[in-house]
Amino acid sequence: MNKEFDLIARYFSRPAPSGFLGVGDDCAMFPVEPGFHLATSTDLLIEGRHFFADVEPGALGHKALAVNLSDLAAMGARPIACLLSLALPAIDHDWLAAFSRGFHELAESAGCPLIGGDTARSVNGVIVNVTVMGQVRPHQALRRAAAKVGDDIWVTGTLGAADIALRLLQGRLPPDPELLAATRAALERPLPPWRYAQSLAGVAHAALDISDGLQQDLGHILKASGCGAVLDYAALPLDPALRGLDDDVLRQALLAGGDVYQLCFTAGRDKRETLRLLADQAATRVTRIGYIRAEPGLEVRGPGGMDITAQAGGFDHFS
Amino acid sequence: MNKEFDLIARYFSRPAPSGFLGVGDDCAMFPVEPGFHLATSTDLLIEGRHFFADVEPGALGHKALAVNLSDLAAMGARPIACLLSLALPAIDHDWLAAFSRGFHELAESAGCPLIGGDTARSVNGVIVNVTVMGQVRPHQALRRAAAKVGDDIWVTGTLGAADIALRLLQGRLPPDPELLAATRAALERPLPPWRYAQSLAGVAHAALDISDGLQQDLGHILKASGCGAVLDYAALPLDPALRGLDDDVLRQALLAGGDVYQLCFTAGRDKRETLRLLADQAATRVTRIGYIRAEPGLEVRGPGGMDITAQAGGFDHFS
Repeated sequence: MNKEFDLIARYFSRPAPSGFLGVGDDCAMFPVEPGFHLATSTDLLIEGRHFFADVEPGALGHKALAVNLSDLAAMGARPIACLLSLALPAIDHDWLAAFSRGFHELAESAGCPLIGGDTARSVNGVIVNVTVMGQVRPHQALRRAAAKVGDDIWVTGTLGAADIALRLLQGRLPPDPELLAATRAALERPLPPWRYAQSLAGVAHAALDISDGLQQDLGHILKASGCGAVLDYAALPLDPALRGLDDDVLRQALLAGGDVYQLCFTAGRDKRETLRLLADQAATRVTRIGYIRAEPGLEVRGPGGMDITAQAGGFDHFS
Repeated sequence: MNKEFDLIARYFSRPAPSGFLGVGDDCAMFPVEPGFHLATSTDLLIEGRHFFADVEPGALGHKALAVNLSDLAAMGARPIACLLSLALPAIDHDWLAAFSRGFHELAESAGCPLIGGDTARSVNGVIVNVTVMGQVRPHQALRRAAAKVGDDIWVTGTLGAADIALRLLQGRLPPDPELLAATRAALERPLPPWRYAQSLAGVAHAALDISDGLQQDLGHILKASGCGAVLDYAALPLDPALRGLDDDVLRQALLAGGDVYQLCFTAGRDKRETLRLLADQAATRVTRIGYIRAEPGLEVRGPGGMDITAQAGGFDHFS
């Protein structure tokens, strides 16, 4: 407990925000504003499963928090604070310094201070578990089941780069150092649109973050909401670094590529102007890519209106 | 994501309490009562480090939640809900059924429903991370720094059994099947006094849960509160199963034995009757074991008033 505590104190302790109780007691504590509910999510990342052993530790620290902030964003929740569990095979001060810097930089910019956690020596490889907590008015939360027939479908940011970077790193695409350099940040340092997401609460209807691929993730909204959708393939916001790639590679990246951590959301047609204005204010790119229909199923309309719905699934941790 | 989700649904999903949002969206959500702060803690348990590979899965499910409930108890917080991250090397349905039963039985009795989580395939061994969330009025929370000179020191439950069971299992004591049978539940199925703990908010001063040994843990209160303490060794509530053991073994178990998950707390002398009444109502054993003094340091008074403060430290994950 002593050395363990020193470790936390040295790399992870920051002064807790006013009114918060941070590291050093049995629990961390913080207030939730009246009228809001607490929103929370947790993600476990394991070396050799979710990241490579030689991952740049700053990128890992960033991403471990980013994937959780993405879940808060998908509810339209404002981040309040986070907890970090970290197991390491040995204490490596350079590694810890870089990891904690990557973590804290994102925590600060997202307003999601680290207020507690746990550390341990692992038997094998690095293990990271982050829990985020945020707040949202319960009736404004962006639920998966809230899509309405006639809604527009939108995505934030661009699509495809993280998938291409992953495939390059895994050797599933021919080596291309230039393309890897242009796409790697999307995989390793995703930036969920947390500011924009908060402004969507009470404006948009359904939302989720694209972690397992647009097609599969949108499928969760359709299933939960009991409806279908049509996507306009040509409208999908392709990452500019991917221009010129083979059509099949692009289709896979756009429709089934995971690790995106951007939002896919639905909203009424009367909200188009509002959504673009809010996006400008949050400096977030937003693109309208289709609409919700009553008829079940997801149809992706390609050139000439042909259905090009990809058969590729998303990422399955147990497959 | 599909099979992963099925796994969660099959073994861990329960209907979320009214007003809560449980498994199935990007975040879980729940209300926090006005006037209360959210209290939260997280614990990471790794096979081969925190538990044996052949641990009975029901006991592991129980303990993973119990150690976290113990942290809430140590703040005087009422449990609201919990999150579970679970990584397994392979899907073993018998194991999952037993683990989830152990987890849910405790969650139900403590009023701390599982409302979300994450699952993954591990590379090596089982990994469990639990995050608990509860609520407490901020000015009534049992802080480590809140001990006052003249306070009584109390412990809940009994001491020593978990340590003896652990030493028997590790072969650090001669085999004794009868003693192991009598002590094993204390190690594997600890029951933190969560009901009593809630009633201590606003009544007691400082508190923590005994996870690393009474002496070391009480030291955290003394350091945080800037005071010292005297313990009456003869008053320590020895687990009845340990009667007749060697004095040295007992002293180690009582003062330095970890994994207890009972509370050590301080309270004004005027609260003795109240504390006993509340303990009766919660069916919790409570024992007054010493007092807080201004002079720094911890003195354990043995037979004849001699200081027998053990030199043994507690458990250090990185030692």
